[in-house]
Amino acid sequence: MEGDDEMKKQEIEEKAMDVTLKDLSKKLEDFAKARDWEQYHSPRNLLLAMVAEVGELSEIFMWKGEVAQGLPNWDESVKEHLGEELSDVLLYLIRLADICGVDLGDAALKKIIKNAVKYPANK
Amino acid sequence: MEGDDEMKKQEIEEKAMDVTLKDLSKKLEDFAKARDWEQYHSPRNLLLAMVAEVGELSEIFMWKGEVAQGLPNWDESVKEHLGEELSDVLLYLIRLADICGVDLGDAALKKIIKNAVKYPANK
Amino acid sequence: MEGDDEMKKQEIEEKAMDVTLKDLSKKLEDFAKARDWEQYHSPRNLLLAMVAEVGELSEIFMWKGEVAQGLPNWDESVKEHLGEELSDVLLYLIRLADICGVDLGDAALKKIIKNAVKYPANK
Amino acid sequence: MEGDDEMKKQEIEEKAMDVTLKDLSKKLEDFAKARDWEQYHSPRNLLLAMVAEVGELSEIFMWKGEVAQGLPNWDESVKEHLGEELSDVLLYLIRLADICGVDLGDAALKKIIKNAVKYPANK
Repeated sequence: MEGDDEMKKQEIEEKAMDVTLKDLSKKLEDFAKARDWEQYHSPRNLLLAMVAEVGELSEIFMWKGEVAQGLPNWDESVKEHLGEELSDVLLYLIRLADICGVDLGDAALKKIIKNAVKYPANK
Repeated sequence: MEGDDEMKKQEIEEKAMDVTLKDLSKKLEDFAKARDWEQYHSPRNLLLAMVAEVGELSEIFMWKGEVAQGLPNWDESVKEHLGEELSDVLLYLIRLADICGVDLGDAALKKIIKNAVKYPANK
Repeated sequence: MEGDDEMKKQEIEEKAMDVTLKDLSKKLEDFAKARDWEQYHSPRNLLLAMVAEVGELSEIFMWKGEVAQGLPNWDESVKEHLGEELSDVLLYLIRLADICGVDLGDAALKKIIKNAVKYPANK
Repeated sequence: MEGDDEMKKQEIEEKAMDVTLKDLSKKLEDFAKARDWEQYHSPRNLLLAMVAEVGELSEIFMWKGEVAQGLPNWDESVKEHLGEELSDVLLYLIRLADICGVDLGDAALKKIIKNAVKYPANK
């Protein structure tokens, strides 16, 4: 039934919106295992791979001068490319944390709390 | 009751383990708003802040030669510092995506699928 | 005469070996002027261009594990590519310093002296 | 005599302005040897040290929004700090090239020629 399909699609989208760091970490681990790539995933290899992706991300912004929030007037294709480069940085970062035995979600929550103490909010 | 507290603690920990990109994105938005920092969060400011954090992350690994998976023999305090630097990169990355109007979780899931097509798994 | 040619060739090579930061700075300025590119050479544009090149440099080293001094067993073509990426970082760095009004050669000499004071040599 | 001192000072300044990549390379080699640091100067250690310095350089520019050529209105102390961070990137870059057996001055001159062919000047 159409209603069912719609519900299912919505459920998938909902899930996509709520993706956890653990979900991504697990997917990356499975991905590496299925390709026998774990042998290449040493901390410094992954770190340099991430630096390479940060370079590609910077390439998108390098000749643009100041860019406004929301990227007004950017082509949809460039925005999509941006999403891919942001993702590449994220995926290597998550994998690096994982290979180092760091719980990134937990560390990030703690860092936000630490920052809140360091920089108290305005009243 | 003790049992209730235990359950609550467990629930919080469970939640920490399952933190979503959306959760972090929302927390960072609230954080910036409460401090009137949204004015500084332009895409290129955030990108350069992220590059600065990538530098601090690299500093941890720079004189170490090759580092094994799981960081054997690393001091607990250095591991904690590592967790903080990984988090700093993550938080600026999420904020950058958000300010650019990119759904990072969605983009990351799509990128994994694209990579799976580009690099088929071994049979 | 053959002798003259040989001497001239040697002189050119000598000169190449002795290239100064000022020489490179002047060449880059002329290059930008001849292409009407000075308008794009703002400090942050150049900085992000340099970060992009650092990414390409990292790409050469990312999956290699630890690499020995002198790069034994590296293909000549990869070494040449490496020379190009190192150059790209250098050229944007020199141009960035120039556009910021920093005398890079002078600053570098001063930094070496400062480092020598900070880290005294072993006796 | 005052005249002599003046001449000497001028000579030193002249020399500073004309510092070659080879000069800096030799100074860095001597510096490392005198401190028994050559053992730490593997290609990937130096690369990560350079990435760390690129991070510190980015830190200077990160919250500034667009910055004009010549850095008008920047404090002299911040400009000096900038000179130090630009130098740190340069010094690790030169040392990295050296340890990899790359003649950086030669490679940079070749890269400029290659770029000139790739991007012909306007007539």
